[in-house]
Amino acid sequence: MSRYFPEESECGHHTVFGSTAIRTFAGEHVQLSFVTAPPHGVIDWHSHPNEQTGVVIRGKATFDIGDETKVLGPGEFFTIPGGVRHRVVVLDEAFQAIDAFFPVREEYR
Amino acid sequence: MSRYFPEESECGHHTVFGSTAIRTFAGEHVQLSFVTAPPHGVIDWHSHPNEQTGVVIRGKATFDIGDETKVLGPGEFFTIPGGVRHRVVVLDEAFQAIDAFFPVREEYR
Repeated sequence: MSRYFPEESECGHHTVFGSTAIRTFAGEHVQLSFVTAPPHGVIDWHSHPNEQTGVVIRGKATFDIGDETKVLGPGEFFTIPGGVRHRVVVLDEAFQAIDAFFPVREEYR
Repeated sequence: MSRYFPEESECGHHTVFGSTAIRTFAGEHVQLSFVTAPPHGVIDWHSHPNEQTGVVIRGKATFDIGDETKVLGPGEFFTIPGGVRHRVVVLDEAFQAIDAFFPVREEYR
């Protein structure tokens, strides 16, 4: 087993909020999640104690974070401090983003 | 100013190792870096105390981390613990990856 390059079997594979697929991998301190959601997919209001800082890589979605709202597209960053409620609603095209969680979300391993 | 959605002017913009462009954004604990490197670009041997966990999103590159070597393509993860020497050599196509640093690299803000 490599110390630096995970096999696919060492990555987490989960379906969340009905239609959103995530592939995850955790280093020592930070966990990445490769998010794929369909057109009009909804990651409904929720919160978690972990910081979530991310970037969109494909498609567009409306991000509601706390009391702010913005449509983000490829290359645009966001940060969700721990405990802040948020929701993501995908627009008309398939959507991909990378999320970084700190600390690691054990339920997403 | 938004608490959650940075303007482009609030992101870091740096050119590193000669030909690699990075756009960065730091949350409270984790910093993301959107890396774009040209075909045959080289991010030469170096190390830093920060953990670097990342994922390739476009193109392929040979990653040397410590005493291990692997060619990674889109969707493949890697992790570089703090202090471990590493090098990235891009293959024939333009390359993009997302790196997450912990703690934040102040020189990359």
